[in-house]
Amino acid sequence: MRFSASFFDRASQAFHGSSTWSKLLVVVAASSGGGLVAYADAKADLGLVPSQATEKKKVLVVGTGWAGTSFLKTLDASMYNVQVISPRNYFAFTPLLPSVTCGTVEPRSIVEPVRNILRKKGGMIKFWEAECYKIDQVNKKVHCRSDIGTNLDGHGEFTVDYDYLIIAVGAKPNTFNTPGVVENCHFLKEVEDAQRIRRSVMTCFERANLPNISEEERKKNLHFIIIGGGPTGVEFAAELHDFVAEDLSKLYPHIKNLVSISLIEAGDHILTMFDKRITKFAEEKFQRDGIEVKTNFRVVKVSDKAIFMTNPATGEISVPYGMAVWSTGIGTRPVILDFMKQVGQGNRRVLATDEWLRVLGCDDVYALGDCATISQRKVMEDISAIFRLADKDNSGTLTVKEIKDVLADICERYPQVSLYLKSKQMKNFLDLLKDSEGNHVKESKELDIEEFKKALANVDSKVKMLPATAQVAAQQGNYLARCFNKMKICEEHPEGPLRIRGTGRHRFHPFRYKHFGQFAPLGGEQTAAQLPGDWISIGHSTQWLWYSVYASKQVSWRTRFLVVSDWMKRFIFGRDSSCI
Amino acid sequence: MRFSASFFDRASQAFHGSSTWSKLLVVVAASSGGGLVAYADAKADLGLVPSQATEKKKVLVVGTGWAGTSFLKTLDASMYNVQVISPRNYFAFTPLLPSVTCGTVEPRSIVEPVRNILRKKGGMIKFWEAECYKIDQVNKKVHCRSDIGTNLDGHGEFTVDYDYLIIAVGAKPNTFNTPGVVENCHFLKEVEDAQRIRRSVMTCFERANLPNISEEERKKNLHFIIIGGGPTGVEFAAELHDFVAEDLSKLYPHIKNLVSISLIEAGDHILTMFDKRITKFAEEKFQRDGIEVKTNFRVVKVSDKAIFMTNPATGEISVPYGMAVWSTGIGTRPVILDFMKQVGQGNRRVLATDEWLRVLGCDDVYALGDCATISQRKVMEDISAIFRLADKDNSGTLTVKEIKDVLADICERYPQVSLYLKSKQMKNFLDLLKDSEGNHVKESKELDIEEFKKALANVDSKVKMLPATAQVAAQQGNYLARCFNKMKICEEHPEGPLRIRGTGRHRFHPFRYKHFGQFAPLGGEQTAAQLPGDWISIGHSTQWLWYSVYASKQVSWRTRFLVVSDWMKRFIFGRDSSCI
Repeated sequence: MRFSASFFDRASQAFHGSSTWSKLLVVVAASSGGGLVAYADAKADLGLVPSQATEKKKVLVVGTGWAGTSFLKTLDASMYNVQVISPRNYFAFTPLLPSVTCGTVEPRSIVEPVRNILRKKGGMIKFWEAECYKIDQVNKKVHCRSDIGTNLDGHGEFTVDYDYLIIAVGAKPNTFNTPGVVENCHFLKEVEDAQRIRRSVMTCFERANLPNISEEERKKNLHFIIIGGGPTGVEFAAELHDFVAEDLSKLYPHIKNLVSISLIEAGDHILTMFDKRITKFAEEKFQRDGIEVKTNFRVVKVSDKAIFMTNPATGEISVPYGMAVWSTGIGTRPVILDFMKQVGQGNRRVLATDEWLRVLGCDDVYALGDCATISQRKVMEDISAIFRLADKDNSGTLTVKEIKDVLADICERYPQVSLYLKSKQMKNFLDLLKDSEGNHVKESKELDIEEFKKALANVDSKVKMLPATAQVAAQQGNYLARCFNKMKICEEHPEGPLRIRGTGRHRFHPFRYKHFGQFAPLGGEQTAAQLPGDWISIGHSTQWLWYSVYASKQVSWRTRFLVVSDWMKRFIFGRDSSCI
Repeated sequence: MRFSASFFDRASQAFHGSSTWSKLLVVVAASSGGGLVAYADAKADLGLVPSQATEKKKVLVVGTGWAGTSFLKTLDASMYNVQVISPRNYFAFTPLLPSVTCGTVEPRSIVEPVRNILRKKGGMIKFWEAECYKIDQVNKKVHCRSDIGTNLDGHGEFTVDYDYLIIAVGAKPNTFNTPGVVENCHFLKEVEDAQRIRRSVMTCFERANLPNISEEERKKNLHFIIIGGGPTGVEFAAELHDFVAEDLSKLYPHIKNLVSISLIEAGDHILTMFDKRITKFAEEKFQRDGIEVKTNFRVVKVSDKAIFMTNPATGEISVPYGMAVWSTGIGTRPVILDFMKQVGQGNRRVLATDEWLRVLGCDDVYALGDCATISQRKVMEDISAIFRLADKDNSGTLTVKEIKDVLADICERYPQVSLYLKSKQMKNFLDLLKDSEGNHVKESKELDIEEFKKALANVDSKVKMLPATAQVAAQQGNYLARCFNKMKICEEHPEGPLRIRGTGRHRFHPFRYKHFGQFAPLGGEQTAAQLPGDWISIGHSTQWLWYSVYASKQVSWRTRFLVVSDWMKRFIFGRDSSCI
């Protein structure tokens, strides 16, 4: 117990300790005057950097989402020659995208220009608005294409060299190859998607309001279907319901009764990643609100007029719709699939990295956020090596003391060990060594390799995939930047756990995700939250918690001000219903 | 959560006044199943109105710009069965469009949903989002087409009957048939235009910032050309200059010196509709700011890479550009051209109405705003009728008393008479009758028709066309609605001037435009204003006048609040440079 407590202390100190101060510093620096910085920028860009750049390692960041941006915000840009490529010149606060779809928050309020963020780093970072379409890992080059118009006289493509590549391109929506989805459904991944949905909702209302069309046609136009009962789909359904109930019903009084919202989920329940109490509350609230939740329905085809789905009970049915939003999960981007083939990961579903976020089989390339997953090593694969490492006297058996000596390192390298102990409510590692009668082992007991294997046989069941959330991506970006900041120090004084297959220590502590909880806004000023320690909070007070957390997590004071004033505007004036 | 509920009650009570209760009711009803209120509304819509509607005259308003909206705002909707058709379900405060192009003001802050405006009229007005593509004046029908998608199963077209038709469709940009303009230039008439310009400006900067392109190519991308030196073009040039100087130069320090802005004007000067002092000030300020003003240049062709223009001195030259905005004036929409042919105005440039805004030759159709022009009757065309009218005793001569008796009516019917007297600094009509030696005529003098003609010979030179401004359109809409409100009373008690060709009086006073002045924002927090009485005001104080006038002229408290908060945001945080 003492161990695990102190480990977590250290971990969170390492991962999250100083973030507040650096944030404050950045804000203060930003608000203390543009003129000086601008002058310094110009000078730095034209004179200083290129000459120094030859000495500095080139860090190339691809993507400006949560992972890329938090990496850039934390990185000490003076130590590297940093270049950034993204098809969007802004960072978007994606958890508020569902709010943008109905005008609760304006699109511009949740975006921050990347250059604003980079300017706070001293102007030494270069940004190019372009899409990376190929990673050439052999020549350490990235091929890019500008997607802003064709007026470039053949200069639309270019390549960028790197010493370290940070891949943070995110993911694309996953259609599971369902026919017609790309052509007929909206997604909800980008700011533009949210804007399109907003226009589309208004268009459906205006269309249903036209004269000379049948009641059936009106109903069809006002049938909004959301496919996917995850947090995004549920939040969008709730926002849409509020928009209709609070604002549109007043403006379209004669057709408001024709509106229907359906939420289609292939599984048994919506919000399955949340606690069952939240799922139940959400399903009941949606039922009261008149949002139809269709569970166990799998969409097989989407045409321009109807959605075709199957259910064991009903067989295939088709449902006419006015607008459909597809939100069933994420898929891998083509550039990543291509890169995976290059590095021998062609048979995987998503790019795999080690616990230090390095792409497996590719030393200078890091991948973080939704485009990658950490391939946590299994204890049983390394069990012989672990045994050898612990068995300092090469006696062929381990004493309890020998185990204790390397225990901290093992637990750090294989976090599943701690998780397993926790799940079994065991206080320390020795509990694992209980003999078959359940008696505690004596300190003097010595284990051979078979006994050691047996003790650890089940820990790998606790290997967990991290969820594809903003929270994970942001923590990864922050972690990696701090590793880069102390790269030189750690080369000489490695701080990580003992190497299991090799000598010495790893340079850095492995990445460890700290879950701060997750919200599920359910509409009507009610939100459900699952907080650490399985603490569940549902209702109006949670909505206020949601407001304060989302306001505080904004990337700049500007967006914070804008988002809060958008919320206020909505309270005072309602949401806007103009078709723009 | 009792507290938060009562807080919302109070908050919304404070902000909404009486509409609160309906909102609350709707919200409560919606969250409790949506039954009761919906029932009441449906009854109102389906039951009451149609039965009354048969007695009421059908007024159909086409267009929701300045003219249409101010008509609707003033109209007593209980007296008519009012229907509104417009391809846009919102009213846009167009004078702020140049501010939207650079993000000084957000698009949504200058638009107000038409339904919000109509709701305040008691909900008896119907609105359809569709485009009117043909007016059938014989059958009193308007043919409409919904432009919102093709998902309408063949119901995209419909017709609407009318008793009175109010045409307020505005105008379209005038390209003077210059080749390549539609394909390559931006216009600045609609909110969407302003949004596109904004994205385009940012795209030009991102494109110019890409690696591996030549200095020349960067310069080309950063060359912004505005064609047309009228108020819109000048204001956009000023906004763009401020955007670059105040915001973008900080974010793109290494390319800011490559930016150039050119304003091309076919005439000798820019802002020719303003006083010469303003023109001079604007031209000098633009020169100081580095905005190149190219006067006497006529654009003859636009390709995707260059603009071709001619000048007597240089002949034809071509100038490469990154983005071009075409703002040279307005042209007539196809639906109006078609309608003009129907009513025998095929040879005119724009739809002509009489002084009561009725389309000439078409009793029940009114046209106002940019799509129409008032064809002011000439005194000399009616001179015999005027003489006959004034000559009450049929003596063949007019006494001064006889003239005085009808003078007020003549001056009202022919405002050019008053204007002429004013311009000649004459105090009253009798001054016109001075004899050839310049002596005043005696009261006893009698004029025959030839003398009368001679006296009025030059007054028609003062016939003036109204400018195509928001101010004129709004006043016309307001005027016409007030006529409609008193239509019944005025049928019995006509209030207008004496009919010249006919008996009795006209029902209404003719429309009279009152000019409240015009602003020309020139950037750098400086504005020029030409106020009534040829009062000129230029500088920072005028900018504040501009702020207060434009804030006060907003169509609703909502947009007023939004516009003012946008200005504040700009002061605090600058303009946003995200490519969305």
